[in-house]
Parts: sequence; structure tokens; C-alpha cells
Amino acid sequence: MSSSAYDQLIALAQEVSVLTSAEAALSWDQETYMPARSLNHRARQMAYLNGKAHALATGTVFRKLLAKAESDKPRDAKAAANLRELRRDYDRAAKLPQKLVIEESELCAHGKAAWAEGRKKSDFSLFAPHLQKLVTLARKKADLWGYADEPYDALLETYERGARTREVATLFAKLKPDLTQIARQAVDQSASVKPNILRGKYPVEKQQLLNAEVAASLGFDFEAGRIDTTAHPFCTTLGPADIRLTTRYDESDFTSSLFGVMHEAGHGLYEQGLPVDDFGLPSGRACSLGIHESQSRLWENHVGRSRSFWEKWLPRTAEIFPHLKKIKLDDFLRAINRAEYSFIRVEADQATYDLHILLRFSIERRIVSGELAVKNVPAAWNEEFESLFGMVPPDDAHGCLQDIHWSMGGLGYFATYTLGNLNAAQLFATARKQKKIAAALDRADYAPLLSWLRSNVHSQGGTPLPGEIMEHATGKPTDAKWHLKHLRERFAE
Amino acid sequence: MSSSAYDQLIALAQEVSVLTSAEAALSWDQETYMPARSLNHRARQMAYLNGKAHALATGTVFRKLLAKAESDKPRDAKAAANLRELRRDYDRAAKLPQKLVIEESELCAHGKAAWAEGRKKSDFSLFAPHLQKLVTLARKKADLWGYADEPYDALLETYERGARTREVATLFAKLKPDLTQIARQAVDQSASVKPNILRGKYPVEKQQLLNAEVAASLGFDFEAGRIDTTAHPFCTTLGPADIRLTTRYDESDFTSSLFGVMHEAGHGLYEQGLPVDDFGLPSGRACSLGIHESQSRLWENHVGRSRSFWEKWLPRTAEIFPHLKKIKLDDFLRAINRAEYSFIRVEADQATYDLHILLRFSIERRIVSGELAVKNVPAAWNEEFESLFGMVPPDDAHGCLQDIHWSMGGLGYFATYTLGNLNAAQLFATARKQKKIAAALDRADYAPLLSWLRSNVHSQGGTPLPGEIMEHATGKPTDAKWHLKHLRERFAE
Repeated sequence: MSSSAYDQLIALAQEVSVLTSAEAALSWDQETYMPARSLNHRARQMAYLNGKAHALATGTVFRKLLAKAESDKPRDAKAAANLRELRRDYDRAAKLPQKLVIEESELCAHGKAAWAEGRKKSDFSLFAPHLQKLVTLARKKADLWGYADEPYDALLETYERGARTREVATLFAKLKPDLTQIARQAVDQSASVKPNILRGKYPVEKQQLLNAEVAASLGFDFEAGRIDTTAHPFCTTLGPADIRLTTRYDESDFTSSLFGVMHEAGHGLYEQGLPVDDFGLPSGRACSLGIHESQSRLWENHVGRSRSFWEKWLPRTAEIFPHLKKIKLDDFLRAINRAEYSFIRVEADQATYDLHILLRFSIERRIVSGELAVKNVPAAWNEEFESLFGMVPPDDAHGCLQDIHWSMGGLGYFATYTLGNLNAAQLFATARKQKKIAAALDRADYAPLLSWLRSNVHSQGGTPLPGEIMEHATGKPTDAKWHLKHLRERFAE
Repeated sequence: MSSSAYDQLIALAQEVSVLTSAEAALSWDQETYMPARSLNHRARQMAYLNGKAHALATGTVFRKLLAKAESDKPRDAKAAANLRELRRDYDRAAKLPQKLVIEESELCAHGKAAWAEGRKKSDFSLFAPHLQKLVTLARKKADLWGYADEPYDALLETYERGARTREVATLFAKLKPDLTQIARQAVDQSASVKPNILRGKYPVEKQQLLNAEVAASLGFDFEAGRIDTTAHPFCTTLGPADIRLTTRYDESDFTSSLFGVMHEAGHGLYEQGLPVDDFGLPSGRACSLGIHESQSRLWENHVGRSRSFWEKWLPRTAEIFPHLKKIKLDDFLRAINRAEYSFIRVEADQATYDLHILLRFSIERRIVSGELAVKNVPAAWNEEFESLFGMVPPDDAHGCLQDIHWSMGGLGYFATYTLGNLNAAQLFATARKQKKIAAALDRADYAPLLSWLRSNVHSQGGTPLPGEIMEHATGKPTDAKWHLKHLRERFAE
């Protein structure tokens, strides 16, 4: 008996994932352990595997199997979702001519180098011509993919399935007054909090011990994952039971690595909870970046920066770092939830973080529409920054050159960070309505919360759309009120 | 202008090496960092990449390009060597039917598990049926490949290009009386050396510091390599500038890891010295295992266990491990060069090591010829062991079950260890005839020695045959006298 077109399609899609997950392993190694001089060979290996994966995923065999499988009635909702998403992926990939894909990868390689140089020297002019080309290319892609209202839709859709620029813009516009007010209050209140009470000596090995204990207590499975050291922390999946978190260490401040690990562990818990047998299929992958980011933010901020968490963990932390024994819980909580206006997004606190995103979304949208010329980006950035934060970046390295995203062709990405914050608050508030979960949270027991997330989010994989995940888990589409409520409560504490 | 068949062939061979080196990276990760539950997915990734590499290297395109390239006059000695070796590799691979290759990989998978179980329980009967199948398969491969005198030739040839069983047997027979006498004397002399004077507390991080300093002092380039931790140490090449050494740590004895690192660094220095642009080609790879092993043994034993090395390094070692300050150089040298009869090859000292190899070569040759039935291996092992070492293994775990090689289908491998010892002594003795090298060795400066090895061995790659390397570098074919002289001098010291 020969297998159905659908089964053959699934096997082929999983074959592609064998290649892409091997490429992910090489990439992880590059960011963690690879010796410096091996860069060229590693680039060649990764390009080769990516090329083979892309050829399989856009080849004639794939196309014919997909069409044939679509002509049968899908056997269940999961099969329907796999066909829906494989079709979307195939069309998006197939619509881009090979020439353009190669052009993009070259533009990004040069763009990344020019951006790094430009940021180092704080000289936007070094990056501007590359950004111009990347924007032109992004518009070309949007035209090839098609879009509802404006080209930015097609880019946003790359990262957040089903999102529309206009809706995100409306949401962000509505959020802005509240967010600026909360930030203002939080910064004012924090003025009296000494920033330095936690500074001290935190040897890397002891931080690693604490990080591992905390990640395990959240439910991260070290039989199916690890934590390694890197320059720019990330979480990556090398297989259905192989999730790698990364972090970096500041020996004068353990919180930066610890909260980073909780953030990445949030991503990792999502990946560890995806349906194992569907690895490499839409039904076995994360639903969207806005959902992914909700998991990292939920564990980092809602769990990791809460009083109940530190009621349990401060004593243990002070065992590992004895000089913390003299710090009171209230002072500790104030220190880790201190808010201030700052220039760099990745170092921003919860109260001001979303303002950085609002800024980027607005700038990106205007660049892509053509309303904002690339050469005017620094001025526009600084102007908007001043209106949101009340201060002007001292230079472009602290302004429009700080993020790597554009140099990698990642236009359309930033909004997912704030969508993640909104989803995190909404999911967390919904989960803790259950008495059992709330009671467990009070004693820093995270098994019931994880179990709820496993069932409502993780195990769903990419079968539902992001909006369906939120509707199903919380009864409502994404709504900003939970996030605002959370910020008000935390920064009014 | 289209490129020649030879150039196309070379490009294809290097394409194969992109796949095999990616597989090597995944394998390295499996042995060092991979979380336990990821085994199945990793096996699938590796099998996939290996399968693709094998398909390319034995496919029609390869075969036709090879034949076409062979019909042109090779442009130089390197091209001739590449054609010679690619033909040999192709023929050997193509002569094995796909069915047999799959059968072998399954036999090895099960054989490895059965061997591990058998060794654990010291029960040969658990492994015997697997060994029987592996031997039958090895004979079948030898028949398919063809051989000069006896089937074992074809297996030996897998690891040592151009070696003949009869010649190795003659060599080993000639060596045996000298080696047994040297071992006897060394063991007798060592009876008065206290084995435990170096035992103490050696934290892993401090061992890592010393290991890295020593490896760097030998010339190992950490911009093109690293040292990681594993259960069974090895050296592997992930790219032309990416050589990974591994080691394990005994916190009560730093010498086990340090000499292990010098051994693996010897392999690594060879790999780092191969012609970079020829990566993935015969001309860019190591010549043979007997030459490879000569490099590891040279650095571990001739350099690492010498007086001049420790004149420099004992003071530094005692800075890192202060309790060693009380140890005198003479006592230290006696301790690291202590000889004793022991059952386990991998723990054997230099004076007794080759006896372990003579034993294995004799047993293997008789198994493969059919003279020795698999069921009689334990008895034959113990009998030969007693005649060489004057004692009988207490059980098969300390006897014929100790090595993993047979369970992985590695019949024909062991002789290369002793060939490596002979080559090491001969190369080292030849190099130090140069005054500049000898003087540098006396002050533990290894740059001139490395430079000589780079020029005479490493940079040659696989263009010459092993015998040609030795003739060219030392003026003579491999001769045991240097090794015997070295052992006599060291153990008469």
C-alpha cells in the first residue's frame, strides 16, 4: 500500500527539518564554541545545508505533493493546518526568484559588517547605503508576496502570522498615552531607589549554579537542553529534545544573566512543550514570534520579577552569594524593578521597554512606505525618541544604529516584542485566575502554571493561528489592558 | 571556458567534505555537549548527512568525472596523488553493495551495545554472536576489495595505506624479544618507584589552565581549535581551521589529562598543518593512521615525558598546584615514567604498551584467517597475554572485552598504534639530529621541531604514501631500531 500524498509531503517536510536542524547546530556552535578562524568554512557548511533545504522545500517534488495533498480532504484539523502553513511557506519561498534570495543574503552579509562598523564609529553614513538597498529589497519582496493595505503588512506577516500593520498601529497609538504615563511614574518613583545595592562580586561558576537551579525550577528539562555562554544570548532548537539556551555573564551583577536565562528558558519551555512527533512540521513548531515572546516575557517578568518568586529564591541566592544576606526582600525587589529612561532597548526595564518598540515600529513603517528617507532616519529617530523619553541620544550608536535587525534584513520584526508583552500579561492573568495555579505561584511552585501553558499554548504548536491561541486560551483576542494593569501594579507596588 | 574534468572532480570531492565535516561537527557535539534525550534525532541527522555524502562520492557524476580526469595527464604530483586516492576510495566504496553497508551499520549499532553490556558483565558470550557476524562481514568485505596474501591485508589497508600483513607480522615477530626484554627491565626497575607521590587534589579548572598553556607551547593554535571535555578522548577536524581536542579529568591525578591532551594535540598539530586549500581532498588529509599516531606519540612521549620538558614545566606546574613544590625533578620523572604490567591497554605505560598491540594483531589475524574460532578468543587471549606479561587477566572485561574497536567493525586497526610508535621514534631521532632543533628541545622550545614536522610530514598531506613520508623525512623506511633505542634509553635512565 503506498502512502498518501499528504504522508509523503509530511515526510519530505521533516526531511527538510533534518537539514535545517543540522544547520541550527552548526550555527549554535558558531555562536558558542567555534574557534575564530573557522568562520569561512562554517559559513560554507551552513550555506550548503540551507541551500539543500531550500531546494527541497521549493522543488518540483514538494510542489506536486502539496498540490496533490490539497486535492484530498484533510484528515483532521492538524492536517488542515499543516497544509495551510506549508502552502503559505511554499508560496512565499517560491515567489522570490533565486536571484533575489542570493542578492538578499549578500546584502545582509555586507549590511551586517557595515552596521557593526557604523555602530562602532557611531557613523550612520557607513550603514545608510546598505540600509537603502535593504529597504528597496524589502519593498520588492513585499510586492512579490502581496499585501492587504501597505507593503509593511507583508513584512510583518513574516514574523507574526495574520497581523496587519494598520491594526498594530491602532493598538500602539492607543497604548502610547498609557505607556508614557506609566513610564513617567515608574521612573519618578525609582528616583529614590539606589541602583547599586546589588553590585558585588559574582563568579561565573556560581552564577551558572544559580541559573541552572532556577531554570530547572521553572521546568526546563536539562535532559533535553542546556545553557551555554555566548556574546548575544538566544535560544535555539537543534532537535525535538535538544533546546539550547545561551547567556552571558557580568561578574559584577548576577541579575543580568539570571533574568536573561529566565527569558531564554521561557522560549525553551515553549520549544520543549511542542509536539515531539511533529518536529519540523507547522503543527510541531511555534505559532508566531508574538506568542514565542509571550513565553519568554511571562517567565522573565511575571514570574521572575515577582515578590513570591524572590520570597523563595532570595534566601537560596544569598546562600550562593553570601554578601546578599544583608539585603532585605523589599529593597531587593525595588532594585530589580527599578525603572529609568535609557537609550538602549536591550537594557531597558519593563516600564520603558515598549516605548522603544513603539518608536521602532513607527520608524520602520515610515521607511518602508517611503515617507521617511533613509538619510533622514537619525533625525527622525532622535525627534521621536525625545518626544517619548524626554531626552536625545548622544550619538547614533545609542540611537538608530543600536539594533542589528535591519542589517540582517529583519524589517517588520520589532512589533512582536510588544505583542509578546501583551500576550504574556493576558495569558498569565488568565492562568492565575485558577486557584490551584495562583496558590502554587505564591509558593514559587511553577508546575501548575507550566502545565496550563503546555496544554493551552505549547502543545498546540502551529496548528492554530496566533489569534486563535489567544482566543482559545484566554477567551479573548489580544488586549492591552492586562499588560497595562500589570505594569501599573508592579510599578505602583 | 569550462573547467577540466579534474577541477570538477576536485570541486565535487570538496562538496562531499562540506557534508562530512558538518557530520563531524554533529558527532563532536554528541560526544561533548548534546543533551541525553537528543540521541535519536542526532543519529538521524548524522545518518542523513553521511548518506548524502556517500551518494555523492559513489554516484554516477563522480564516477564519470573520475574516469574522465584519469584519461588526462595529471598536471602535477599532487593531482596524480589525488586521482590515485580518489580512485582507491571510490573503488573501495563502490565495491561494497548498499545492502552490505546498511548491514554493517546495523551490526555495528547492535555490536556496540552488546559489547558494552558484555564488558560491563564481563560476559564474552553476550558479545560473541555479534563478533562472529562482524568477522564474517569483514571477510566478505576483504573478498570484495581483494587482497595480496590473506584477507587481513584488505582490512589493514583500510587504516594503513600500503601495509601488508606479512610484513607487519615479520616486523612484530622481530620486535617481540626486544620489547619483552625492555618491558621486563623497566618493570623491575620501577618496582622501587612509589606510584603515589603525585596523587593529590587537582581541580578541573586548574588542570584546564595547565593543559591549555602546554598545548599552546607545543604550537597548538587556539584560534583554529579548542579543548573540550568528553568521556572517551579524541581529536576531530570540523574544518581546515577547526580542530577539536577532547580530554577527561581525574581530580586526583593531573597527569592523565595532561598527557592525554599532549597526545591529542599531537594529532591536532598534524591536522592544523595540513594544506588548508586542499581540505577534503586526499592531498589535504592525513596520510595514514600510522603517521597520525606517530604525531600524537611523538608529542606525548618523546616530548612530554622528557627531562627537558619538565625542567621547564615542573616549576610552572607547581605554581598551579603548590603541593607539587616539594617534588624533585628526578622523582617526578620516575613517577611519570613508571612501568608496570597491567591488563588495560589504554592505561599502559610506554614500556609495555606495544606488547598489548602485538597480542591484538596476532589474535585479529587468526580470527580473520579462520584459524581462531570466535568462541575460543578468550582462551587464546589469556594464553598469549600470560606468555607476554606473565599474568592472566582476572576476567574478560580486563581481557578480550576491553577494547571497543571490534564492536565497531574496526578489525585491522590496532597495528597502527605500534607503527605510530616506531614512526614517532624515527622522526624524532631524525629531527633532533639537527643542532638547532636539539638545542631548542633542551630549552623546551618546540617551534623548530614543529617547523620540521610541518615541512616533512604535515604539509605533505596525503600526497605521498606513508612509506614515502618516512623515506623522505628520515631517509629510510620505518625501522624499529629508533623506538627500541628510545625505550632503552628512557627506561635505563
